[in-house]
Order: sequence, then C-alpha cells, then structure tokens
Amino acid sequence: MKLHDTIAAIATPIGSGGIAILRLSGSRAEEIITQVAAAPSGKPLPKLEDRKLTLCCIHCFGHPDALIDQALAVIMRAPRSYTGEDVAEIHCHGGFFAASKILTELLAAGARLAESGEFTRRAFLNGKTDLTGAEAVMDMIDSRSGLGLQNAARSLGGALAKKIDALREDLMAVTARISAAADYPEEIDPPAPGETAAALQSLQAKIQALLDGFETGRMLRDGILTVIIGRPNVGKSSLLNALSRSDRAIVTDIPGTTRDVIEEYIRIGGISLRLLDTAGIRSGAGEVEQIGIERALSHAREADLCLFVIDSAEGITEEDKKIAEQLKDKHFLLLLNKTDREARITPEEARQELGIALQNIIQTAAPKDGPVIGIDTLETAISRMFLSGHLNPGEVYLSNTRQRDALLKSRDAIARAAEADSADLPYDLLYVDLEDALSALGEITGVTVQEEIIDQVFSRFCVGK
Amino acid sequence: MKLHDTIAAIATPIGSGGIAILRLSGSRAEEIITQVAAAPSGKPLPKLEDRKLTLCCIHCFGHPDALIDQALAVIMRAPRSYTGEDVAEIHCHGGFFAASKILTELLAAGARLAESGEFTRRAFLNGKTDLTGAEAVMDMIDSRSGLGLQNAARSLGGALAKKIDALREDLMAVTARISAAADYPEEIDPPAPGETAAALQSLQAKIQALLDGFETGRMLRDGILTVIIGRPNVGKSSLLNALSRSDRAIVTDIPGTTRDVIEEYIRIGGISLRLLDTAGIRSGAGEVEQIGIERALSHAREADLCLFVIDSAEGITEEDKKIAEQLKDKHFLLLLNKTDREARITPEEARQELGIALQNIIQTAAPKDGPVIGIDTLETAISRMFLSGHLNPGEVYLSNTRQRDALLKSRDAIARAAEADSADLPYDLLYVDLEDALSALGEITGVTVQEEIIDQVFSRFCVGK
Repeated sequence: MKLHDTIAAIATPIGSGGIAILRLSGSRAEEIITQVAAAPSGKPLPKLEDRKLTLCCIHCFGHPDALIDQALAVIMRAPRSYTGEDVAEIHCHGGFFAASKILTELLAAGARLAESGEFTRRAFLNGKTDLTGAEAVMDMIDSRSGLGLQNAARSLGGALAKKIDALREDLMAVTARISAAADYPEEIDPPAPGETAAALQSLQAKIQALLDGFETGRMLRDGILTVIIGRPNVGKSSLLNALSRSDRAIVTDIPGTTRDVIEEYIRIGGISLRLLDTAGIRSGAGEVEQIGIERALSHAREADLCLFVIDSAEGITEEDKKIAEQLKDKHFLLLLNKTDREARITPEEARQELGIALQNIIQTAAPKDGPVIGIDTLETAISRMFLSGHLNPGEVYLSNTRQRDALLKSRDAIARAAEADSADLPYDLLYVDLEDALSALGEITGVTVQEEIIDQVFSRFCVGK
Repeated sequence: MKLHDTIAAIATPIGSGGIAILRLSGSRAEEIITQVAAAPSGKPLPKLEDRKLTLCCIHCFGHPDALIDQALAVIMRAPRSYTGEDVAEIHCHGGFFAASKILTELLAAGARLAESGEFTRRAFLNGKTDLTGAEAVMDMIDSRSGLGLQNAARSLGGALAKKIDALREDLMAVTARISAAADYPEEIDPPAPGETAAALQSLQAKIQALLDGFETGRMLRDGILTVIIGRPNVGKSSLLNALSRSDRAIVTDIPGTTRDVIEEYIRIGGISLRLLDTAGIRSGAGEVEQIGIERALSHAREADLCLFVIDSAEGITEEDKKIAEQLKDKHFLLLLNKTDREARITPEEARQELGIALQNIIQTAAPKDGPVIGIDTLETAISRMFLSGHLNPGEVYLSNTRQRDALLKSRDAIARAAEADSADLPYDLLYVDLEDALSALGEITGVTVQEEIIDQVFSRFCVGK
C-alpha cells in the first residue's frame, strides 16, 4: 500500500480522439500539474479553483518554452474526489503520442506511473467506495448491454453493498446475543427458545434470494451463453450472419480466443447473447457430419440457451429428433428456418412431432437480399425465457463469482450455526460459525478482506482507472 | 452551416478505458444534459456553475429510474468555450457500450450526432480559432514526435496565423497606396519611385523564408521519409527490427497501406523516421536480386534520407559501389553493419573507396542477444543532417501542403505585381495582382476562404473534435 506517492496515468482509452485525460492522484498532484502547466499568458498557473476546468498551456518539465499542448487543467481536492486524495486532471488533445508525451513529463515532474486499478484501489482504501462498487466500475466499462449496464450502475450506486450491510447487521445482532450469553452466562439471559433459529432462518432466506439472482446477474453481465445447433446446411451460419448484421445487433469480435469456436456478442432487447458459433465446428475432411453435431452438443450442455435450427423446407429428420431429445432439459428454442421458401412443416406439426411448446417454436429466414425474418419473435421468446419473472426492475443482482463464492461461504457457515443451535451445542461453537459467516459477508464489501483478495480484484482493472 | 442545432459526440478515443467524455455544443446543450442527468440524490440537477465538474447520475432519457452511470457533468457557457457556443460535457466510465448508450440518450433528448470536425468547425466559424489553428489541432492528434508536437502546438497557439497576418498587413499597406493612387490620381501622390518595388521585395523575402521552412515542417509533422537500402543479407531487416525494438524507438504499424513496402514509424531524438522497409521488396522466385535493389532505389529517389547498409565483414563489392553512385545526390548515411564480427573494412577505407564523408559513416550491429550498436551515432548524424542549422528553436514551421500552396499562389501574384510595377504598367493592373496575393494569404488563416476549402479542411478531422 504505497499511499504516499502521487500516481499518474492516461485515463481515456488508448487511440486517436478529440480529447485525452491524464489523471494524477496523491498529495503532490497539484504541485506536479504546476510544473508542466502554465497560464495561457505563459505566467505560472494561478491557484486552481476546486473542480473548475481552467485553460492552460502544457510544456515540457523544466522547459517552459517547449510548449506541448493547450489544455484544460482541473483539481479536485481531497476528500471530495474519486480517490479521496487530491486528484488533478489534464484534458489535452487526444492523440496517442501527445497524451504519452504529457504523461512522460508528469513522470519527470515526480509522479509515478499508476498500476492497474490503482486509482480505484485508493478510492477503496480511503473509504470512497466498497469492493462491490469498485467491481461495478469494471463491470460498467466492460458492459455490453443496457440491462447489464443498469445492474452495474446500481451496484456502483451502492445498492448491493446496502443489501450486504443489512445482512451483516442482522447477523451481528444474533452474534452479539450469542456472544454475550457465552461470556456472561450469569448476568445475561440466553436467547429465548427458537429465537436464534428464527433469526438464522430469516438470514438464510435472504441470502438464498440473493444467490438465486446470481444466474440472472451473470447473464446480464456476461450475456446469455448461446449455442446455435443443427444439422449441416440448415442455414446456421447465414442466420448468425444475418443476426449480426441486423440493425439491433452489434457484433464484437473477441480476438485471441483460444476456444475451438468463435465467440460473438449480439445485442437483442436489453441483453446480450454471447453466441458460440458452432458453425466454426466443422467436420474435417473425411470425418462424418456426426462429429460436428456431437461437439456442438457438448458445448450445448454448458449453454444458457440453445437455438436449434431446422430447415423447414426439408422437414424433420431422424437426426433432428435425436438432437431435440438431447436438448430437452435445456432452455432451447426451435428455429424453423428458411421459411421464405416453401415449407414442408408447420410450427404445429413440429410441436406434435418433437413435443416442443408452440411458444418456443419460431419461424425464421435470412434471405440474401432483405431483412432477416423472425427476430422480433426471437427477442420476445428470449425475454420471456430469461427476463419475465426473473428480472425485477430496479432490483440489483449479484453478478460476480467472487461475491457469490463469499456469499456461499457465509450461507454454509450459517447453516452450520443453525445445526449447532438445533443440537443445543455450546454457544462458543455457535459463535465460531457465526464469526465465519460475518467474515465471509465482510469479504464481499471489503470490510474484512485480505490483501490477496484486494490484489485479485484490482488486477482485472485497466491502468488509469 | 447548420449553426442552430445542438451537436453531440463521444470525444475520447473509441475503446475501453477509465473515462470517456461525451461532448455537446449548441444553445440546447445545458437543457439536454438536464434531461439525462440528475443530482446524486435523484433530484433534478441544480443550475451548473460555469466550468465546474459536478457529480451526477446519468439515466435513460424519459426514464429517470433507469440509471446508466455515475458521472461528472460540466458546462462551459458561450462565448468562453471551445466552440464559442454553450458546450456541455459528461465524463463517464469509459466503456465503449456505456459511452455509446449515453450518446444514444443524448440524441434521444434532442441532440444531433456531430459530423467529423464539427466542433472545431464551429470554433472556426465563431472566430475562436483561425484555419491554421484548426489544422494544428489535427496535427497534434496525429503527431508522432516531440518536435512535431511542439511545432503543432505553436501553430495552435497562433504563431503561424500571426506571421500570416503580419504579411497581410504589409501587403494591405502597399495595396492601399496603389488603390488610392489609382482612384484619386489628382489628389493623392503616387508612390515614390522604387517604393512599391522595395515593399514587394521585402514581402517576397518573408514569404520565401516561410516556404523555405516547409520541408523542415513537413518532416517534423510526417517524419523523415527514410529508405533502408543494400544488397541482400547485409542485415537490413534485423537492423530495422533492432531499431524498432530499441528503447527509444516506438513502432507504429500503419495498417491498410496499399504500398508495396511496409511503413513503420520509429522515433529517434525528437523526430520520427517514417521508414520504408525495402526488405519487403523481395525478388520473386526466379527473379534476380537486382530487381529488389532497383525497386529500393526508385523509392530512394523520393526519400528524405537513405540508410545504405553494407556488411562490414564482407567488404565493399562492385554492386555496393553502384548503389553509392546512385545515392550521391541524396541525404544518405552509410551503415557499416555487423561490426560485432571481424570487419574486413574500416570507416576510413570506406571513405576512400566510396568518397563518403567520415561523419556520414556509422558502424552498426544488431546482435541477437544484446543492444543494437551505433544508435547514438546514427541519431547524432540524423540530427546534424536535418536539424542543426535547419531547425530554429521557438520558430514555427509551415507543415501543411494546403497552406504552402496558398502561400505559393500569393508569392506568384506578388511576383506578377512586381513585374507590372517595374514595367510601369497602370496601377489598375498592379492592383488586381495584389488583390490576388491578399486573397491567397487570407485563405491560409481563413479570412478569405471558400466553403469548399473549409469542407476539405474539416473532412480529415475525427468525429468528436
């Protein structure tokens, strides 16, 4: 925890743009700014008014004549700043070299290059945010859908921390009663029969409700893991391409993926689908088609959603029936594709033959010239499957495995405590379990947290945040 | 000139980063901000203090409950803003989706997506900058070297515009004298003999001085166009790779280049070398080596600098002598490469055999493990060749072909006027040439400029600037 030096970094994305921001945090932030910035007149910068953007000229450190840029400078003094320390920013013209050059001068003037997430880490250490808020910052930056963004914004606003804090308060009340009864058995009345059990049961229910929302939160954050499956030549690839090209879908390639399938993100409604393109799973030369389908099925087992494509002009084959059989325990939608051609099968016939509910059968087509057919219905079906009844507007969902794992630890410790209570074991033993549960809850917000966990949280941050 | 609507864009580079800036300009900027931002309490945003960063919550337009981000908002009111209009900014968490989502909400609230360079165009139209300043903005963003950045910063600061304005004033004085003498021959004395000639000569000298600096300015801006040339297997590629990897050199790939050679930028001292990697010019199968060298030589003809590489362990061949002969009118440096091996030739011998000044002969080596040898000397030689005696610290250099072409037009018109004057042609004829010269000078700063030229200047800008 190097809290006493002043850190600097480029806080905007790397690249070419109108504006770049250099950010400093630490006790020397203001002093360092004055070493590389002067008033437009060339005179030393006047004392900056708090939080006020002020026009200045940036020059090389130690060379006031070597002008680098015209910029805006601003200081946000402790404690009313992002990190809780003095924060200073330079808003300069956003070329990569120009911003790097100014960063070099800030380092020459005595700043240290910030590590990944170090600004937010300082904010956490200075009590400006808890760990759930810090993690929400990166979730916002990485977010790919409107509902995912909103869930992260709620966490950032402290909604999740508030829930965890409420759980801790309830748990502390139980723990304090037990602890007092254990320490002062003669002076303090023990909890009434059933009192502890009821309190623990109520806590368990609340924790379980949070855990139950995790799958929803994870899908909001990471997208619904979706596999397109079907026999060769039923139109999987052209459907995927058409989906990607359609107005509402924006495709992001994930470079450097090491999987044997291509991942693409498309946005549909307020959520994103993380599509595994099993069209990328192709039978090698000489291999039978079956292998491709087997591989797709093995991916399907881990998927949140399967889009099972059938060529409606061909009808349902024996192979299609086998695929449907394997998917029956999954969330899946049957896409009767190529409905722009003459169809040999109706949705009603497919329902009868494969035993799939009509509302999960969607007619699609991706004609070469013209918009893809069936997207609206697909969107409605996906919303019904994952959002209606699952998503509570205004609710905050747990979306982070670190937080979930800590919550699971807490749940398990409470379960042990409840067991000890029902077995009338000594208060001391109960107390140990309750302390474990409290500590696990504290890990989520960072009240009780080890250095390694903090390191791990901030290692996934970008530099400059 | 759609001056009356309010424009919006993401002003920071596209990508993932700590902070993104959304920028608005126009009379409705402040009103639109209040439609998507609220105070952290959820209450409407209070009237924002000018230029002061204020914490706020961003929500969807029309849905104050749908929180998107916590952000900072700032308003810079007309006329003290970048564009001269009301400018508002939102500083949000810098994910691509998060920033795009907020932009969508700003557009929903009534902003129009800004066109390329539209913010700076408005700044120009509102008299906040002249055209040389506007062009300097893009030069800053595109700059790749410290000295290039400084030259752009001087232009941005108005140094070039000041010079052009001074020329225009001088020229206007001459023109006014001529015009008065032409219009009121009876009342106003004509210029004294030689008076006009002397004034025009002085102007021509000043314009020529600016034009003479263009090559320096162009090299500062675009880098020194450099070709590495030499017979196969003398170590050109490994030298280039070593240069690119060395601490002081940062390589930027230029993707999508259509040339038959690879372009790389390396920084050496305060300037950048735009290196054409003629190692990419390879003889095809069956072609003789000669073809590769011929192609490199044809590129060398347009280069600012040639780095001619010889394998010092092999000595000078007949072919090397032919190459040296062809380069003799160019700026070139002889690199005696592989000096980490036993050399068959010393710099002194190379000087005698090829007739090259010793100061232009540099011993280099790029050993596999270990730093590249000779970079310091190379840097000194390049600085001596292009900077010493060429670069005047604190001077601003013309670096833009549009500006140079207008200056050439002005110079030619003045030359015609001088000719007319020396031939004692009527004042009216002289006056036409002087007006042409004035108008050409005015094009540079934009005092007299046509819509098409403005369009052309701003079309190379990015959106958000």
